[in-house]
Amino acid sequence: MGEQSFEVKFEPSGRTVDVLAGTSLVEAAGRAGTVLDMPCGGAGTCGKCRVRVDGADAPADAEQNAFSPEELAQGWRLACRQRVTRDLTVVVPESSVFGGRHQILTDHDTGALHELEPELRQARVRMEHPTMEDGTPDLVRMEEALRASGAWNGDGVLQASPATLHRTVAALRDGGYDGWALLRGDTLLDYHPGGTRTPSYALAFDIGTTTLAAVLLDLSDGTEKGVSSRMNPQTAQGDDVISRISHAVQGEKELRELRDAITAVVGEMAAELCREAGVAPNAVHTAAFSGNTTMEHLLCGIDPAPLSMVPFVPVFGRGLFMPAANLGLAIHPEARAYVFSVIGGFVGGDTVAGLLATALPERTGATLFVDVGTNGEIVLSHGGQLWAASTAAGPAFEGARISCGMRATAGAVEKVVIDERLRLGIIGGGAPAGLCGSGLIDLCGQLLKCGALGCDGRLPAPENLPAGIPSDVAARFQRDADGEVAFVLSDDGTRRVSLTQRDVRELQLAAGAIRAGINILLRQAGLDIGQLEHVLVAGGFGSFIRRDNAQRIGLLPPELPHDRIVYIGNASLAGAKWAALSHRAHARAEVIARLARHVELSNDPDFAMEFAMAMYFPG
Amino acid sequence: MGEQSFEVKFEPSGRTVDVLAGTSLVEAAGRAGTVLDMPCGGAGTCGKCRVRVDGADAPADAEQNAFSPEELAQGWRLACRQRVTRDLTVVVPESSVFGGRHQILTDHDTGALHELEPELRQARVRMEHPTMEDGTPDLVRMEEALRASGAWNGDGVLQASPATLHRTVAALRDGGYDGWALLRGDTLLDYHPGGTRTPSYALAFDIGTTTLAAVLLDLSDGTEKGVSSRMNPQTAQGDDVISRISHAVQGEKELRELRDAITAVVGEMAAELCREAGVAPNAVHTAAFSGNTTMEHLLCGIDPAPLSMVPFVPVFGRGLFMPAANLGLAIHPEARAYVFSVIGGFVGGDTVAGLLATALPERTGATLFVDVGTNGEIVLSHGGQLWAASTAAGPAFEGARISCGMRATAGAVEKVVIDERLRLGIIGGGAPAGLCGSGLIDLCGQLLKCGALGCDGRLPAPENLPAGIPSDVAARFQRDADGEVAFVLSDDGTRRVSLTQRDVRELQLAAGAIRAGINILLRQAGLDIGQLEHVLVAGGFGSFIRRDNAQRIGLLPPELPHDRIVYIGNASLAGAKWAALSHRAHARAEVIARLARHVELSNDPDFAMEFAMAMYFPG
Repeated sequence: MGEQSFEVKFEPSGRTVDVLAGTSLVEAAGRAGTVLDMPCGGAGTCGKCRVRVDGADAPADAEQNAFSPEELAQGWRLACRQRVTRDLTVVVPESSVFGGRHQILTDHDTGALHELEPELRQARVRMEHPTMEDGTPDLVRMEEALRASGAWNGDGVLQASPATLHRTVAALRDGGYDGWALLRGDTLLDYHPGGTRTPSYALAFDIGTTTLAAVLLDLSDGTEKGVSSRMNPQTAQGDDVISRISHAVQGEKELRELRDAITAVVGEMAAELCREAGVAPNAVHTAAFSGNTTMEHLLCGIDPAPLSMVPFVPVFGRGLFMPAANLGLAIHPEARAYVFSVIGGFVGGDTVAGLLATALPERTGATLFVDVGTNGEIVLSHGGQLWAASTAAGPAFEGARISCGMRATAGAVEKVVIDERLRLGIIGGGAPAGLCGSGLIDLCGQLLKCGALGCDGRLPAPENLPAGIPSDVAARFQRDADGEVAFVLSDDGTRRVSLTQRDVRELQLAAGAIRAGINILLRQAGLDIGQLEHVLVAGGFGSFIRRDNAQRIGLLPPELPHDRIVYIGNASLAGAKWAALSHRAHARAEVIARLARHVELSNDPDFAMEFAMAMYFPG
Repeated sequence: MGEQSFEVKFEPSGRTVDVLAGTSLVEAAGRAGTVLDMPCGGAGTCGKCRVRVDGADAPADAEQNAFSPEELAQGWRLACRQRVTRDLTVVVPESSVFGGRHQILTDHDTGALHELEPELRQARVRMEHPTMEDGTPDLVRMEEALRASGAWNGDGVLQASPATLHRTVAALRDGGYDGWALLRGDTLLDYHPGGTRTPSYALAFDIGTTTLAAVLLDLSDGTEKGVSSRMNPQTAQGDDVISRISHAVQGEKELRELRDAITAVVGEMAAELCREAGVAPNAVHTAAFSGNTTMEHLLCGIDPAPLSMVPFVPVFGRGLFMPAANLGLAIHPEARAYVFSVIGGFVGGDTVAGLLATALPERTGATLFVDVGTNGEIVLSHGGQLWAASTAAGPAFEGARISCGMRATAGAVEKVVIDERLRLGIIGGGAPAGLCGSGLIDLCGQLLKCGALGCDGRLPAPENLPAGIPSDVAARFQRDADGEVAFVLSDDGTRRVSLTQRDVRELQLAAGAIRAGINILLRQAGLDIGQLEHVLVAGGFGSFIRRDNAQRIGLLPPELPHDRIVYIGNASLAGAKWAALSHRAHARAEVIARLARHVELSNDPDFAMEFAMAMYFPG
């Protein structure tokens, strides 16, 4: 047949190509712009490249195995086994197209749908061996083969770092010019000889002011291979972002100190996740980081001074890309890391990540997103618009500034029920050591419910208790040595866990700030609370708050039915995860960051009044 | 006038924009897509942003200085001084447009024309100060200001590394949000506060097997601020590319050793050039490197093994970009270096650079390019086609393998004239220490001219000299102790400088290889020697060869009139220089590298015969 050529028409695209006799259908499809899925690399074993050929030839052995007799009779064949020997019409089902319909995954907590479409791509490259007649350089040879197979169709030329090229020399020759290329856009990142795709992983990080969380992901299916969390080591330089900024602005050395502290732990978490999952660090090809604006600046080593001064302007707004090694990750040398775009000085990448994970902008009904971390961020989505605000809500919910406050670790009272008597839920069991955020909310909510606390939040004196308080509860209102009233949860003689008037005030301030913020955003959007279809409560701590009590203390709008309040866990980490799994998430994050109207609550003329009103627990 | 707006029409573009009253004409022009040249940053001092305004207002002081009374009467004004107060029509001459007509410079040696269009651009950015109402992040603020002024119109978003962002924080605030941005494509590389553009420089390197040459360039006008040359320190691992490859392939350590040796010297040359020119290393913003294929692989640290084995395939073909720091340059931290594309294993980036410098592909007549370095590269250009070949010509021309051979340094015989007696030109004067390439060519050329040498290249025995040889010359044919004939140039009792039969054979081999190559290329192109309009002779050594003698020994075609032979000096360095001065040169180099047909001489069935014939000196 020699140089004879035939016409192959592909359906449903309708595209037609002329190819030489003997060309495989996979290659013909590539030339017609359709890259077929072929994880086995064309060995005929994976059965993915199914096509229907009008008047097909007798099936090969591999096809006998891959199809039922009925399917074979209908013309179903494997494109990798078929060679063009006449004019053909070929039907390509969408399930056979590589990347044609991206794998869609569901976010575990929010139910939002996300594409699995990593910025990395692997493609089989089969090249002719070089000869004295064809001395095409390696990289150009690979570029031409990728283009011919349709696996790459960049406008420019294939790029590669010298280090990648150096590694490729032996790999090309070892594999007889047959192997898999790892690509990011127009850049060759790696090349492996042989017929099988190499595993490919990603890391996602949530860089919280208090806690760091990470997850290792399999890029082939988006599954989690391990999770890890650590305390943020920067707490040595202060619990909140302001004290860390104060430290950082003392000089380059101090900034580097904060940066190095966090990148060292990030590196340890990555190494640990790989080790425990049995994944080679070199097989981790991408990473994504979300955090509040200050944390992201410190992580990247960018002077955070403007974040501590009016008007609190971030240095960067768009997402940043950088070599993963710059952030402490000893993974694939060409891996790059994405750091989330931010909305403003106090509404950061963690919020953008949360909005991405929940697909908030795409929700049709009015939805409120509340992330209660060290700070409290509130975002209202309605009619394609986003209003975003931050409040200094957090510390009380994390146990800070509470007399017996503690983080949600062993010994913390995390749950309080008051009926005839007081019952406590203790993390890890045992004796109570202190009160964590959810315990504090529960306790005040229950005290409000039984009438011991009024809407002004005043702790009644033991001699002055309202009627009808169960005696076990009433007995716990006690005066201490200074004559101050406290509500005693436990006292075994050595350790006393109690709630003071000051603690209640801290809770009123924290919950009130969030509630006032919610009200301002609703007003700016022209909405009533009742119009909210959902309130999404994010934050590691959120999942443990009982809706009743959160509504009783006014942290969440008391008017809303329970079923409209949804706990979504660590939405920042979930967003980082989706950014690691799909490059489309980067573009979506930019849109979210630019779409969001940053509402500076203190600038709103109504805020002072709203805040004052919110000091009262709901009636 | 407040929010009143007016229409400004620009000619010759015909574009119209509506702007608020008080907008400067520079900004209005930017919005209409025309960026005016304004090196003074709008201070009214450079007089570059000239425009003609119909019915212009009375001129400002700066304009009184910038124009003649006639010009002022015709409506010529400086756009930076004019504010829009009514509807206007403004004529913008092309000379006022920034980047509209690029500065065109002439290559000193070849007369070829080149654009001055660095990959770096500086643009004035004037931003509003952030406020509580407008907390736009710094980088987004800068992006928006650049876009509004028309100085940048990328499709995506402005990128910056964390390190650049970190540096920008203080600079923005120190300069009151008014300064100059340094951009490369869509990436912000630096930002300087204040109203004046910062100086910007480039470095160009020719990485020869034997010699390294560098030049420091001012990017504002393309002028040379200094030149430097050094021996290639890799000579410690061998004089030729093959011995260096043999060293490199012993292991990673040996490859790194070669790489580090060269990058260390490259760094020293850069530092020295900056120091001597009084240029801050931080003001050097880009660099370009050309070298033969092996040198470029070693410079980048890429395994050169394939270059030493049939079929001699380069690892990379396209030009490579990498951080300048990777190549030993301690210049601006965001500077990147370009390493030239190559044609084949033995026709490298130095040849591509030479073809770029001479604009060879654009020449209308048939032109031959010959670069005589450690290897000899030959490229024939005709009718838009390029044929390129390499020969192992070089060592003899650099004094290697010649009994009294030496490089062209102090004491080398560089010029020989034979009339009634022998006269020698010695580099640096004094007693002859040896024979360099041009001296060898001169000597053999003159011996052929006076009839002492025949076309077979046989040195006559003293007793057997042809008639008519001047007696001073005849007396120099002597037999040594072994009975071998030599031609003695000088002998002061301690040092004897002479030419042996073996030396003549080495010259015949070297010149013959180049001549055979020239003949093969001409034949492949279907040309006769007489059709060559020019022969361009490149290479540091080329400039010293006398045309007569080079033609007598057959290195250059003897049939050609002298005026068709042009010496062009170090064309590789010239090409690197243009690549440093213009990003268009990168694209041109790609075209050249892909356009050139790499002719493997030993594959040509006629080569053996041509080479054998070329062993004879021309009759």
